[in-house]
Formats: sequence, structure tokens, C-alpha cells
Amino acid sequence: MTEQTTIAQSDQQKSEQSASDIAKPKQPRQLVRFTFYKLDPQWQLLPAEQRQQGKQELLSIFEEYEQGPLMRSYSLYGLRSDCDFMLWQVSYSIDALQGMSSKIRRSVMGPYLRETHAFLSMTKRSIYIGKNARGAQHDPRLVITPKDKKYLFIYPFVKTRAWYALSIQERKRMMDEHIRLGLTFPSVFLNTTYSYGLDDQEFVVAFETDEVSDFLDLVQQLRETEASRYTLRDTPMFTCVAQPLHEILEALGA
Amino acid sequence: MTEQTTIAQSDQQKSEQSASDIAKPKQPRQLVRFTFYKLDPQWQLLPAEQRQQGKQELLSIFEEYEQGPLMRSYSLYGLRSDCDFMLWQVSYSIDALQGMSSKIRRSVMGPYLRETHAFLSMTKRSIYIGKNARGAQHDPRLVITPKDKKYLFIYPFVKTRAWYALSIQERKRMMDEHIRLGLTFPSVFLNTTYSYGLDDQEFVVAFETDEVSDFLDLVQQLRETEASRYTLRDTPMFTCVAQPLHEILEALGA
Amino acid sequence: MTEQTTIAQSDQQKSEQSASDIAKPKQPRQLVRFTFYKLDPQWQLLPAEQRQQGKQELLSIFEEYEQGPLMRSYSLYGLRSDCDFMLWQVSYSIDALQGMSSKIRRSVMGPYLRETHAFLSMTKRSIYIGKNARGAQHDPRLVITPKDKKYLFIYPFVKTRAWYALSIQERKRMMDEHIRLGLTFPSVFLNTTYSYGLDDQEFVVAFETDEVSDFLDLVQQLRETEASRYTLRDTPMFTCVAQPLHEILEALGA
Amino acid sequence: MTEQTTIAQSDQQKSEQSASDIAKPKQPRQLVRFTFYKLDPQWQLLPAEQRQQGKQELLSIFEEYEQGPLMRSYSLYGLRSDCDFMLWQVSYSIDALQGMSSKIRRSVMGPYLRETHAFLSMTKRSIYIGKNARGAQHDPRLVITPKDKKYLFIYPFVKTRAWYALSIQERKRMMDEHIRLGLTFPSVFLNTTYSYGLDDQEFVVAFETDEVSDFLDLVQQLRETEASRYTLRDTPMFTCVAQPLHEILEALGA
Amino acid sequence: MTEQTTIAQSDQQKSEQSASDIAKPKQPRQLVRFTFYKLDPQWQLLPAEQRQQGKQELLSIFEEYEQGPLMRSYSLYGLRSDCDFMLWQVSYSIDALQGMSSKIRRSVMGPYLRETHAFLSMTKRSIYIGKNARGAQHDPRLVITPKDKKYLFIYPFVKTRAWYALSIQERKRMMDEHIRLGLTFPSVFLNTTYSYGLDDQEFVVAFETDEVSDFLDLVQQLRETEASRYTLRDTPMFTCVAQPLHEILEALGA
Repeated sequence: MTEQTTIAQSDQQKSEQSASDIAKPKQPRQLVRFTFYKLDPQWQLLPAEQRQQGKQELLSIFEEYEQGPLMRSYSLYGLRSDCDFMLWQVSYSIDALQGMSSKIRRSVMGPYLRETHAFLSMTKRSIYIGKNARGAQHDPRLVITPKDKKYLFIYPFVKTRAWYALSIQERKRMMDEHIRLGLTFPSVFLNTTYSYGLDDQEFVVAFETDEVSDFLDLVQQLRETEASRYTLRDTPMFTCVAQPLHEILEALGA
Repeated sequence: MTEQTTIAQSDQQKSEQSASDIAKPKQPRQLVRFTFYKLDPQWQLLPAEQRQQGKQELLSIFEEYEQGPLMRSYSLYGLRSDCDFMLWQVSYSIDALQGMSSKIRRSVMGPYLRETHAFLSMTKRSIYIGKNARGAQHDPRLVITPKDKKYLFIYPFVKTRAWYALSIQERKRMMDEHIRLGLTFPSVFLNTTYSYGLDDQEFVVAFETDEVSDFLDLVQQLRETEASRYTLRDTPMFTCVAQPLHEILEALGA
Repeated sequence: MTEQTTIAQSDQQKSEQSASDIAKPKQPRQLVRFTFYKLDPQWQLLPAEQRQQGKQELLSIFEEYEQGPLMRSYSLYGLRSDCDFMLWQVSYSIDALQGMSSKIRRSVMGPYLRETHAFLSMTKRSIYIGKNARGAQHDPRLVITPKDKKYLFIYPFVKTRAWYALSIQERKRMMDEHIRLGLTFPSVFLNTTYSYGLDDQEFVVAFETDEVSDFLDLVQQLRETEASRYTLRDTPMFTCVAQPLHEILEALGA
Repeated sequence: MTEQTTIAQSDQQKSEQSASDIAKPKQPRQLVRFTFYKLDPQWQLLPAEQRQQGKQELLSIFEEYEQGPLMRSYSLYGLRSDCDFMLWQVSYSIDALQGMSSKIRRSVMGPYLRETHAFLSMTKRSIYIGKNARGAQHDPRLVITPKDKKYLFIYPFVKTRAWYALSIQERKRMMDEHIRLGLTFPSVFLNTTYSYGLDDQEFVVAFETDEVSDFLDLVQQLRETEASRYTLRDTPMFTCVAQPLHEILEALGA
Repeated sequence: MTEQTTIAQSDQQKSEQSASDIAKPKQPRQLVRFTFYKLDPQWQLLPAEQRQQGKQELLSIFEEYEQGPLMRSYSLYGLRSDCDFMLWQVSYSIDALQGMSSKIRRSVMGPYLRETHAFLSMTKRSIYIGKNARGAQHDPRLVITPKDKKYLFIYPFVKTRAWYALSIQERKRMMDEHIRLGLTFPSVFLNTTYSYGLDDQEFVVAFETDEVSDFLDLVQQLRETEASRYTLRDTPMFTCVAQPLHEILEALGA
């Protein structure tokens, strides 16, 4: 970061810079977007033919981007009022995220699809776990690999600044407790992505499971961990159900 | 919870896992949704015939889901500005919640019914009361059984993280005080359901009574309990009146 | 309050229940609703005849409910942007509150009148003042009796939980200071009603006076009382002017 | 303030009442309203003739109220997104504030002018400065006298309750520091008005200057004063540019 | 700052005034506006010819203001839901900011372009860095000079009042740590502008880089600095992509 001024670099700065270099892996990191859509009820009042054309067009765009690293559709109608469905897109370039958005915007349904929430994030190696894996050429945490479970639970996450004032050892100790508790719920799988500076949250966490009650019980138990006291914000929370996009559109009366 | 990494389980973890297994009862838990609707005033400007058809359709959908574990209608017009009525639905599957929502969406009234609030939750055994009942085959707290009183008072509820940092004994002591006070209002009945991770609150509490003033007095007295100091959020608060759906639609000029 | 479980009542609980019984007076308590309306500007674009009919209908509904315990109209146009006028209704039954709302909804103006704010509350004896009056058959504080002054100032009110953790003696001492200060403004009259559990606030306070500056000065001085430190929320604040409904509708160009 | 009860006045109360009487000056205090308008873009799509008529009507209403104690127009388009212009009106009666609002509402442009923000306040003698002037017949601080500078900066202001718990001497000491710092920016002029109980803020502060950067530098330096630590809220902040109303309407494409 | 009163200036005040004079440089400071636009989907339903004319008109206005000190366009569609694109305008006069806004408002697209966010600020010399440069005739920090990187990350920024209560030495020490860390990310360039009193934030920070992940990593590491604990608000955060305006309009289906 260079401000509009010149400051000589000390040796200490150079060593920090080196540490920073090490943290920048050669393996590319993925960009992730969770986009929540609400269909304007005016759409339902349009002629059937126009709506049929619009749905086909949207499905084609979806299929095109299924060729990318990841594209999944989830329904939220009947579960959360401010959105009808969510598209989970992963890419190695911002162009792909913007490209899909542009194509949807320009499609027949475009003017009737509201993005009511969206979270932008990236994959990143955790500073708390798996240090021994750092030397490896390929780190699986830099690649989103869904388990394709029935349910996906998503929320944006911000920690208090008091958390960041703790030593890394203290934080690691608390994260270990958090992870140990998580392991007692083997049916729940976690994807953590990072949003620092990119969007209004610090993390986007996405949990996959086939059992709603397991996830509820896990979150309740996590409240008692020490790390939980450093949560500043963890809402809104989204209960998403894996469903093919054409079924979702059918269910919405689109 | 498994992150994209491998961590060996210690003995301690296995014993925690066992405890977790015990907490997962064989008896199925119910899913609950409180959905608050506001009718778009544009509906009233449509032709009478179309409106009559729309009302019949909505009543048929409601009757269909009355076959499920629970379906009740409550009015809020004249009591709360941001909603007209509420449907309280209980089910053993998310499909039923989504199914009813889908049918309403696709009905004639669908484009004119706004979901202005909604709370998703599940039944669960309390960790504070009735431990002696845990051995039983059937736990009545996992099944919502309304008392069918005239009034239902609902609010979402979030506790401070300081609450969860207390020992379970401390929390139980405070909950006992809370429960004892509640017992002095025998005309008020409480249903507590759990939303951890599923929605923006931790609990949805729903009180039934025939006497509005009894509930008001109870809530005022509960403010003085020690547990009350650990409330982070308990709004919005909804005063709901049990009323058949066809009467509600009539009153709204639908 | 009975949860879905059975707990034996101790002697202590029974004595608390007796105390609670004493607090439930035979004299009925009143229900109160302050409803703030904003007229959709689209109304002004309708034909004059339809608008004339709509105004007459609204005035008739208002007159009908003037037969009840209390019904007053106040204007806010030119003073507060999010509402045009307010109706203050008092009743002994929720049916009357819902009935008036239903009639307005079904009237010609109904689809154009937005309820932008509303507060639901009840009368109740204060736990801080007038204990000596408790033995009396009739308590004037359970009946709203406006002084019919030119101005009405309303705000919803929530106290911090720290307030409720104080002893009743401590709180009474602070309320006495509060009341003494209030008495130095004899031109200002206060109506306090209670919303615990019924709506998003704990109290709705409504001050009547003929002198705007007296009320402003009183509120400024009240900031310095000890009780004031326990205020969590006291907004939005509404400056209302007593005005017949037909004059208000005229002024709005309805 | 008289609640619905009777409390005997002690001698102490009577002496407080006398102090209060002294604080009520014979000289009338002014009512002030800052109203921020956003023009609905639909207006621009209306026929030119209708728009011309609407603009003339609005200008006539403005001129009529320019006869009162104060009426000024300021533009905010291009500076703040949620409003296009602001009218600063001062009056000795609420009727004049409501009258102008009513006339605008009933005019051709009325249905297209949204009041997106508004602040209601009154003039009042400061309890911190100028005590020696209290004996005078006429107090200039009770009369708004703009300096007619190019820029006006406005924000609503709420102090923490901790401020009011300080002794008047402590607060005066801090206000003196605040005032001394202000005097080092002689190009900036301050109007403070009071909103306690009348609106959602405690004060509305309005600064006039010809130099934007002077005001920015002043506010930055004021952050370091001790009084600044007792600020609870000082947003939204409005940068307003003095401009004749007809020029503003022209610039908006009205 | 002169209130409506007269206070004699002490010697101390005069010396502070002199200090203030020194802080007012002869070199003019720039005004900056970041305006975020959302295109109303209704635009897409208009005839192609009208839309073509509207796009040409908007591009002409943009080109006209490119003659000024700075004018850049960035896209946000597909990255942030509440805006489609952002215009970054720098000027030496408020007239230019208002002029461009007025021209857009009056253009064919005007009624369909919503300003969903906007930040107003000015350039200013930092009180923490580069004191040695103050004697120079020209200070580069008073002139925005973009590096024209692919990405621009923007957020409004407010510090806690506790920050301003620290001594300038303490704050400088923390800012030095902040700056040293920033220097370890040489691919990231920072523009800081000031909004005290002009808008709802204290600063607008804008970071340029070609590497999204570098910026994310920098922001994560900055969380651990001591200065970070004094952040009151740093949202919303905007990820912007440099893109010519005509390409943006094309992508939006305008």
C-alpha cells in the first residue's frame, strides 16, 4: 500500500514483506458469489409465452456457467421472505461473475429479478489450521468442493476488533475448541470464504448437511465456545435447499 | 462439522460426540414457520369476480395444509401496521413449508400477498427443564400442541453471548426463577421453538392466552428476573388474534 | 405461564401468585392505539367525485367510533415527514380497534391510506405512584381522560434492563425526582400507557399542552434526572396538533 | 406535568418552579423547520405545460412565505443522493409551518415532491453562554438571523445521557473549550436550535460559511475536544448550497 | 465559528487561530464525489431508439466532465447488488459536481438512474505523515492522481471518539504501524479523502490494485494493528472494476 508520499523501508518492513510474499501462494484462489434473487410478482402477470421464453433463457445462462468451476441453485421460498432462490457461483475471474450478471440483466426475466442479497468472497488458507500442508503444491482449501447435500446454511460473519487484538496463539487455542466441537457433528460440512475489504462482512460461512436439526444443534452448542464471544455479527442467516433451477422456477409460478 | 482438512479425533472428542448422539432423539422434531402477510392494496382495485376466485383458492390451499400437523390463522390488522394476518404452520418436512408457499405464490392472490415477516424454527428439548422426562419414548415438547386461546403473542428472541459464557448451573438457576414467575400466570401458555443457524433469531417464543392484560403484566414482571438482563433482542413483537382465514379476508376487503 | 411440562408449585410460588392476583384489578383496563397515516399522493390524482365520496366515508367511520371511549384526530403534515395525521383510539375490546381498521381498509380511501407507524398499549396502574389509591373501587389512571389541549407529543419508550435490576425503592426514588420536576411544568399533562409484550416498546407516553416551548423545556430538564440515564430508546417523537379530521383531509388536498 | 394523580407540592418543588418560570422568557421563541425534498422522477415525464404550471405554483407559495420571519432555499442535488433541495422556514406559529406544507401538498407538484428528511426545532437561550445578557429585553439568540453565506451545513445532534449526568460547571467548561476552538474559524457561523421532545434529535445545528474547507477543518478539530466524546449521533450530515428556488427547479429538470 | 453572541478573544485563542491559518494552504484542495448508480429495470422496457439516444446523451455528459481534474467510471454489477456502476469525479468547485448531476437528471436516462450511494469529500494534508513536505509550494496529496489499476476498493470510514482523545503522538505511533504494514503490499495504492461535516463519514478511502487477493490479504492483516481497534464503521465496502462507461451501459442492457 503506497500513499501519495514516499517513506523509506526499514529492514523490519522488508522482513514483513517477505512474510507477506510467502502468504501469497502460486496456486490461484477462487472468487465466490452467493446471489439471492426475489422474483418481482409482476412477472407472473405477463403473458405465458413471454414467461416461457424468459425461463428458457435463464436456464441457458445457468447451464453456460455450469461449465465453470462451480454453479449451484438453491431455493429459499417458503423459508425466508426476502428471497426466492440463490445461485452459488465460483470462478477464477471477476469477469465470469460480472458476465453472468450481465447476461441475466439483459435477458427477458432480467428486469423482474431483484438481487436482494449478495455476498462476494474468495478462498484462502486459514491461518489457524493445517500449517503442515502449506508446503504442498496444491491446497484443497483454495478450491470449493461442495458435498452436494440437501441443505446449505449461509451467513455473513464479522468478528469484534477485540478478537484481532488477541495473540495468534490465543486465537488458535479458541479455534481448536471450535473445530473440536464441530467434529462431533460429522454430518455437517463447512466452507469458509473470505471477504475482508471486498464486501460488508469478513467471512461468508456455508454449511452443508442432510439434517436440519444437526445444524441447529451444532450452532446452539457453538454459542458456548470461547470464540463465540468475539462474534460481532452473524446475520442474516439463510436456510437454502438444493433444487434444480427449472424446478425452482416452476414452484415460483415463473 | 468437517472443514476441508483432516484432523485426528482425540478420545475427548469421541466422548463429546457420544454426548451429542444422546442429544439426537429418535423422535422426530417438528419444523415451524410463522409467516406474516400484508395484502397489497392494489388487490382491492381488481374486479370482484377475480378477487372472489382468489379468496376461494387461498382458502383451499389453507384447508389442504390443515391436514398436516398444524395450521392456524391469526389476524393482525388494526394491531400492527406491517402485516394483516399470520399463518402458523407446523410440519415434519421442509417440503410442506415450501409446498404451501409455492401454491400461494402461484395462486391468483399470490402476486398481491407480501410476506413482510417470517420466522423459521424447530421444536427441541430444553436443556434447562424436564431432564427426568428424557428417558421417555415420547417427549411432548417436540410436538406443538396449541391451547387454541384467543390471543397469540410472538417475538423472535436473541440472548447476549455473555449468557452462553455462564455455567449451565447458573443459567438453570436463572431459568428456574423465570419459570416460577411464569407459573404465577396460569392463564398464559408458552411455546418455545429454536432457530439457531436457521434464521436471524435464536428462539421464536409464542404465548397463548385469553387475557391480553395477563400477558402484559407477565412480561413486565419478567423484566425484573436475572435472566432478562441477558436479552439482546426481543422485537418485533406481534399481537395476534385467532380468526378463521375467511373472516380475515372479509375484514381486509379482499 | 405454563410450558409443555409440569412443575410442582412451592409455597413461595403460591405467595407470588397471590401478589399477582392482587395486581389484577376488577376494574377493566383500556386498550389504546395511536395510528399514524400517510395518504398516498396517488389519491390526489383521482377524480374529484371519488375523492369526495372517500372523504365522506372516512368521516362517517370516524364518527361511528367517536361513540366509543375515545377517538381523537391530530395532524402532523408540515411537522413530520413520515405521516400526515394520527388517530388516537381507546376501547375496552380489541374488536373495536380491529373493526375500525377493517372499515377503513374496505372504504374507498382504504387502498391509499398507509399506516406508517402505530403503537398498541393498555392502561395500567403505576407501580411507583398512588399506592394509597389501590383500595378504591375506581382508579382514574385506568381510564384515559384527555385534557383536549392544542398539542400532543407522543413517543414510544424502552428502558434499559439495568433499570429493572434496581430495587423498587431505588426506582421509586428516581421516579419521584422525575415527577417533582414534571410538576414544575403545570401546563403539561401526561398519559402513560403500557405495551410490554404487545408491541415493540414498553410504554407509549403522550403529553398534552397548549405551549410547545413548555414541553421542549421540560424534556430538556428531564435529561438531567437520574432516571433518564436508564432510557434505552425514546424515538420516534411525534409533534401532533389537535385538528378535526375533515379539516385535516382538506389541508392534505384529499 | 401533571399525571392522572394528585401529589402535594413541597417547598423545594415551588422553588424549582420559580426557576422554571424565569427560564420562560416573555420574548417569543421561533419555530424552525428544515425540510428536504426529493422530486419524483415521474414528474419529468409529465407534459411540459403541466410542469410549467406546477413550478410557477411552487414559486408562488415560496414567495408567499418569504413574507414570514425566514424562508430560504438550498440545493443538494449532486451532493447528497437522498434529497434534491431544502427549504429553511422560520415562523412564530406552527400554523405557518403546516400552512406551507398544506399548500405544497395541494399544488400540482405536490404529489411528486417527497419529504425525505425534515427537522423541527425551536430557538432557545443557551444554558452555557451569555448569562449576562439574560436581563435584557431582547435576546438575539431567540431570532434566527442568517448570514446568507454560500454554504449551509446541517446535522441533527444527540448527546449521550452521560453528558447530562455531569455538573453544569463541567459541561460549561467543556463548552467553553468548544467555543474557543470555534472562534479560530471566524468564517464559520453557527445557528443552534432545540428539538427536545419535538423531534428525533435534541438539537439541529446549522453552520454557514463561504469556504467548504474551513468547515471541514473545524469539524475535524472539534473531534479532539472533550465535549465531542459525549456525542451520541450527529448524522445525517447535509451540505447545502444557497440557490434561488427557480434555479434549483431548472437544474432538476422540473 | 461565531455564534449569535460576542466573546472576547484571549491571547491563547489568537495563537490557536494562527495555527489554524497555517493549516489553510494557499494550494487549492479538491472536491471529490463517488456516486453509485442503479439503473431502474423499467429502462430496459423502453423502445430501443429512446434508449440509444439516452445512452449517447449520458456518454456525452461523461466526456464533457472528463475535461475536469478527474472523471472515471467503474462497474459493480455482478459484485454488489445495490448499484450497477460508479462515477468518480474530482473538481475544484462544487458547481462542477452539481452541474454534472443536473445534466444527468435532465437527460433522457435521468429519471431511470437512481443514486443509491454517494460520498462527498475533499483532499487534505494528513496530520500524521509527511510533515517535512509542508513547506513545499505544491503538495501532491492535495491532488488526486489515480494509478489507473483494474480494481478500486472504496469504503466510508468513521473512527471512534476514543481515538480523538488520544495524544497526537499516540495516534501517530499507531498510524506508523498501519503505514509500515501497508508498505508490505506494494501493489496496493491508497487515496484518502476527508468528509468531516460534509457527509455521514469522516473519511472516504479508495484503494487501487490489479490484484483482488492482495487487497483482501492487506485488509485482513490491518485488522491486527492497534489503530484498527478505533474503527467505528467501515461499511459499506465496494469492489469496483475499471471499465469504460459505454461498455458498462452495454453490459447492463441499457
